[in-house]
Amino acid sequence: MEEKEISQAVIGRLPRYFRYLGELKDEGVERISSQELSELMKVTASQIRQDFNNFGGFGQQGYGYNVEYLYQEIGRILGLDRTHRFIIIGAGNLGQALGGYLNFERRGFIFSGMFDKNPDLVGKEVRGIRVQPMEEMEQFIRDNDVDIAVLTIPKTSAVEVAERLVHIGIRAIWNFAHVDLNVPEGIQVESVHLSDSLMKLSYNINRYLEENEQQCEKK
Amino acid sequence: MEEKEISQAVIGRLPRYFRYLGELKDEGVERISSQELSELMKVTASQIRQDFNNFGGFGQQGYGYNVEYLYQEIGRILGLDRTHRFIIIGAGNLGQALGGYLNFERRGFIFSGMFDKNPDLVGKEVRGIRVQPMEEMEQFIRDNDVDIAVLTIPKTSAVEVAERLVHIGIRAIWNFAHVDLNVPEGIQVESVHLSDSLMKLSYNINRYLEENEQQCEKK
Repeated sequence: MEEKEISQAVIGRLPRYFRYLGELKDEGVERISSQELSELMKVTASQIRQDFNNFGGFGQQGYGYNVEYLYQEIGRILGLDRTHRFIIIGAGNLGQALGGYLNFERRGFIFSGMFDKNPDLVGKEVRGIRVQPMEEMEQFIRDNDVDIAVLTIPKTSAVEVAERLVHIGIRAIWNFAHVDLNVPEGIQVESVHLSDSLMKLSYNINRYLEENEQQCEKK
Repeated sequence: MEEKEISQAVIGRLPRYFRYLGELKDEGVERISSQELSELMKVTASQIRQDFNNFGGFGQQGYGYNVEYLYQEIGRILGLDRTHRFIIIGAGNLGQALGGYLNFERRGFIFSGMFDKNPDLVGKEVRGIRVQPMEEMEQFIRDNDVDIAVLTIPKTSAVEVAERLVHIGIRAIWNFAHVDLNVPEGIQVESVHLSDSLMKLSYNINRYLEENEQQCEKK
């Protein structure tokens, strides 16, 4: 199947479809209509059909979608049929948390190495992986066919480490440092800015409080 | 200033403006044009103006924006001029990482309590906060004016804990469990699905590889 250029908004929604379909599959559901999926996921059926049409539609609508087929296809589109090896830079709590997630492994993301500049953390083991000093990062990436580097370090060091990763030819950076990384085209970056998410929550709390205060004043 | 209903997409971009303005402020920059901000943030100047127009525009365009004023105003819109007390449910590595972030404190988010059902973790201290058993959660929320509960527990327990939080009247849930939470209107939920972010990265890696393979075949 030829895939045309798909918007990042659509891509961003695929993992959620994949998650719901995985749960349906585990529950033994064989077929589901876009209407049923719409109610479950609380998005419109038309949104679902539009999203799926980007990939050829995934089969007949009248009979509903085949859950197993849809799950496999979306997984394949997401590249989960390939194995990706990742390393974690930064062996603090967040790095250890990410290294410990067995779920990643199940999706084909293999935790392969961990690095930290802090000598007190070097030599420590996280799920069988020994923390190595930063100096060994380049050689390890070369020797172990690493695709993804996960940055769980402060923003002050993230920019410099990202430059080293680009230089060695890393394919992708999963960035948890609170800074936007500028990398050449062809290197994929996905950032998780935790503070941004918390501020969005804060906005919505206060918005709701203010609306309620206004309503109370009106009464 | 009267604020009209703003789309969540715009809200989602505010923390990033806030971050860049904070950095400009720290560097001593006093004024910045939408054009300069556009180049720095790699979004179009027209997007910036449109976003800001939702909040009245923040001052004269010809002279550029006053950085300090814009920073303060966006912070106020995000509710960062108020203090929010949060608790963390789940004292594993991720919970400990979030409890340890001093940056949250600087933005007015006060780490107030931590809970876990694992007796081995109860009594442990994370940045001066003692991990308490789950049974004490409700009383603690009541006594300490807690706004936000952070869920860093597996999805199997997240749904049940979210119900307890809703029942006790929590204002907001910051959800790291890999499940969508259904809560009544008026309770704010912001989810960080780490696997979803990793899958998006995987999609982009493979998309790029496939494009390159196709180009090589053509040659």
